[in-house]
Amino acid sequence: MAEKSLYDFRVEPQDVDFTLRATIPSLGAAVLNTAGIDAHGKGFGVDALNADNHSWVLSRMALELDSRPGQYTDYTIATWISDYGRVLSTRNFTLTDAAGTEFGRAVTQWAMIDLATRSAVDLSWVGREHAEAIVDVPSPTDRPRKVREVVPTATAEHRVAYSDIDFNRHVNTMRYIEMMFDMLPLELLTGEAPVRLDIHFLHECRYGQTLSVGCELRERAALYEIRADDSTIALRASIEWK
Amino acid sequence: MAEKSLYDFRVEPQDVDFTLRATIPSLGAAVLNTAGIDAHGKGFGVDALNADNHSWVLSRMALELDSRPGQYTDYTIATWISDYGRVLSTRNFTLTDAAGTEFGRAVTQWAMIDLATRSAVDLSWVGREHAEAIVDVPSPTDRPRKVREVVPTATAEHRVAYSDIDFNRHVNTMRYIEMMFDMLPLELLTGEAPVRLDIHFLHECRYGQTLSVGCELRERAALYEIRADDSTIALRASIEWK
Repeated sequence: MAEKSLYDFRVEPQDVDFTLRATIPSLGAAVLNTAGIDAHGKGFGVDALNADNHSWVLSRMALELDSRPGQYTDYTIATWISDYGRVLSTRNFTLTDAAGTEFGRAVTQWAMIDLATRSAVDLSWVGREHAEAIVDVPSPTDRPRKVREVVPTATAEHRVAYSDIDFNRHVNTMRYIEMMFDMLPLELLTGEAPVRLDIHFLHECRYGQTLSVGCELRERAALYEIRADDSTIALRASIEWK
Repeated sequence: MAEKSLYDFRVEPQDVDFTLRATIPSLGAAVLNTAGIDAHGKGFGVDALNADNHSWVLSRMALELDSRPGQYTDYTIATWISDYGRVLSTRNFTLTDAAGTEFGRAVTQWAMIDLATRSAVDLSWVGREHAEAIVDVPSPTDRPRKVREVVPTATAEHRVAYSDIDFNRHVNTMRYIEMMFDMLPLELLTGEAPVRLDIHFLHECRYGQTLSVGCELRERAALYEIRADDSTIALRASIEWK
């Protein structure tokens, strides 16, 4: 059995908003970056999978932040894989400050796709080949919740451009989060209330597509549905403030 | 007299485009990040200046890249201040791969502003107080060039949102670069030709403003003029491929 892996980060000037605390997208980026580095270091990163024409794709993500660390603050992200199912593997994270206090956590679920067919492949072999990478510690919070129905009260359009896409030629996760956040009032974004974000990815979006970002703003929550070229649902998401 | 300061970086998965090489905006971000870290470590970072209600503002930037490093490649940024004028200080950079080969360089010029009046203050005192921070090595390439006249062949609009702004509540430099790049054909962006970028900042743009990004595309160059709320010129820039 493996141990959790620890990675050190620091809140850099480009990570903060004008409250001088790390933005939620920048902390989410650090979480996903940790996933990539850890998988790479353990030999089943995107680069290794690409050799077999496979890749990891993020399917669902839950991110909870009790508070946002200030500029130049050091923090540590611990990550561990708790299980491999047939279709999804679960990777967990905790975010801890220098004093050892946990201020955030995340649960992500990943599918492996065949790059030729873009369909999910059976993960069982990864579970067998990399069983030593599994850590017997449960997820630190509820797994990503499904968002069932969204009735947009506002809609924004976004044409997918070069700076939105990742190495897979698809819109990168942090851009989706930024599109969602950009539709919210500044008071909510810069407040200090604990927040939970759930994202459920349904279809990948590509360069040149026009996205329609529908937002249903409630009192302490926002639900989202992003559609590509006005038909296919790309993702559903929710943000909840305590 | 001081020595150049060295900072180590690695090209992470979120830094690359689908050619699996670092994007120009991600390398530019590393350069500006280095400026912030180095100034912070030497005691004249934005955080220290804020105590006196002052801040650094990037006035001009030239960035040259001969090639773009691949994913998971280590590289080093060296930075040094070569002089303080009355209005502008010059900070230089070289980007070097693990074998010691220089693959890029940058020259940036910074003004110090009074946060209350948002006007430039005399820098002479910084030159006196921090004379030991100056390194007697000339800039590694031509200083940022002025772009005089732009006749746009295409124009894009962008409303400044939360994810565009920095700790100063102004549009951050990398977002401007992304806006410019997003107007170019993919072949130019993902090519391997050496490139030089010059940006001249004229006015800060704020949350809620609508920017008009004018692009004059030539055969191996693109000139830009970004206007805020359709009048004030925020910046002029050029990108040239060899």
